[in-house]
Amino acid sequence: MRSPGRIQVVGIGPGSLEDITLRATSAIAQSDYVIGVSTYIDQISSLLRNQKVIKGAMGEEVQRVKKAIELASEGNSVSIVSGGDPNVFGMGSLVLELLAAQDGTIDVEIVPGVTAVNAVAAILGAPLSSDYAIISLSDLLIPWADIEKRLTSAAESGFVIALYNPQSRRRKRNLARSIELLKKHRPHVPVGIVQNGTRPGEMTAVTTLETLMEHEAIIDMHTTIIVGNRESFVWKDKIITPRGYQRKYGY
Amino acid sequence: MRSPGRIQVVGIGPGSLEDITLRATSAIAQSDYVIGVSTYIDQISSLLRNQKVIKGAMGEEVQRVKKAIELASEGNSVSIVSGGDPNVFGMGSLVLELLAAQDGTIDVEIVPGVTAVNAVAAILGAPLSSDYAIISLSDLLIPWADIEKRLTSAAESGFVIALYNPQSRRRKRNLARSIELLKKHRPHVPVGIVQNGTRPGEMTAVTTLETLMEHEAIIDMHTTIIVGNRESFVWKDKIITPRGYQRKYGY
Repeated sequence: MRSPGRIQVVGIGPGSLEDITLRATSAIAQSDYVIGVSTYIDQISSLLRNQKVIKGAMGEEVQRVKKAIELASEGNSVSIVSGGDPNVFGMGSLVLELLAAQDGTIDVEIVPGVTAVNAVAAILGAPLSSDYAIISLSDLLIPWADIEKRLTSAAESGFVIALYNPQSRRRKRNLARSIELLKKHRPHVPVGIVQNGTRPGEMTAVTTLETLMEHEAIIDMHTTIIVGNRESFVWKDKIITPRGYQRKYGY
Repeated sequence: MRSPGRIQVVGIGPGSLEDITLRATSAIAQSDYVIGVSTYIDQISSLLRNQKVIKGAMGEEVQRVKKAIELASEGNSVSIVSGGDPNVFGMGSLVLELLAAQDGTIDVEIVPGVTAVNAVAAILGAPLSSDYAIISLSDLLIPWADIEKRLTSAAESGFVIALYNPQSRRRKRNLARSIELLKKHRPHVPVGIVQNGTRPGEMTAVTTLETLMEHEAIIDMHTTIIVGNRESFVWKDKIITPRGYQRKYGY
């Protein structure tokens, strides 16, 4: 009899294979099946040996997870690969939601990864360093009014703000509306834009909310934008948000 | 003549060596010096070969970074190891702040890592999945009033909230005050507590804000707390925050 199957939802990091964890590489190595969209399968292709690969399409997440549950029920070890970290707009919750809906008994492990905000912050220098909020500008799954409320409250209360999914081919208005909202509370803060962070074709710009749209050519679904707080400053090509050591101790 | 030195601020992940990235292990392997507090040096001790090690104490961050700059100025490759990700209450900003203050020319690389919120979310299941905010309850470097404002606005606007540094031996009041604030906006949401996540002695509890303090024995500076939003629910020992697929597509 085969041993019972399992599902691993594997965070494969922001792009470069250098930024994947050892646990993620082992999880993939020990799988019978690896499931994911083409971008993520391609990202880890050099790690694949004898695993069966199932490539899915964007928008078919539910079908993909059902397939994974079916394969695991038959005794297979299945890795669902998820860009960045599986908890951050990734596949983690959908796997658990579907298992919970059928009150399943399949063993699930979520393997964390480096999410875009941290990879992009590293490229930009040290823009986070303090309390921060992550907001996706995609209103496909949640109402725009909720997103707007989060943008305003995060800007009012001093969070560094990371914008995920800032703009897609079919969704153009949300970014401009977000900039308007954010500008009211922090007109002059540094803003970092990174497209394809840690991947081939990485593009970076350091700008302000006022001039952000001049960089629209590098803003799409592979871009993360970090909006500094009022203490953030630019030095050379870096954004730095001080942690408060100087105020407290001097240097 | 020696080649010019450099500083790498290396995120070593949440605890387990399994959750470190390949880039971080290479950075450490190629260093002349590795600098950090004992906890982090111990965490990566099996990766050390011939590197010179400088252990520092908590509260001596400024001295440690000055030493690193001095060593790099002499031509050394220096890794400053930082728990989790160097941008998240880590050493990244201080290194750049001090270099900016002297307008230095030393090459700096920030190596991102898996930060506690992502590691702990994976242990708890899928509590993030949606927009989230990270708030440190330590008021050593920033005023308590700012922290309170962030707690309130994040709770009001539906962010999943991760609390870093919830309680130390000398700082006991902030957590209780935070719970009072959060309870006003979300009295019944699931709350996950993870102490020593991915490390030996890992302890986990799933509770609510009402009963959180019953778990005080596992709440210290090695604990991260995740407060769900109004859609979060508990299934078995997991916390799940739905992404909205069901509302949008059904399963």
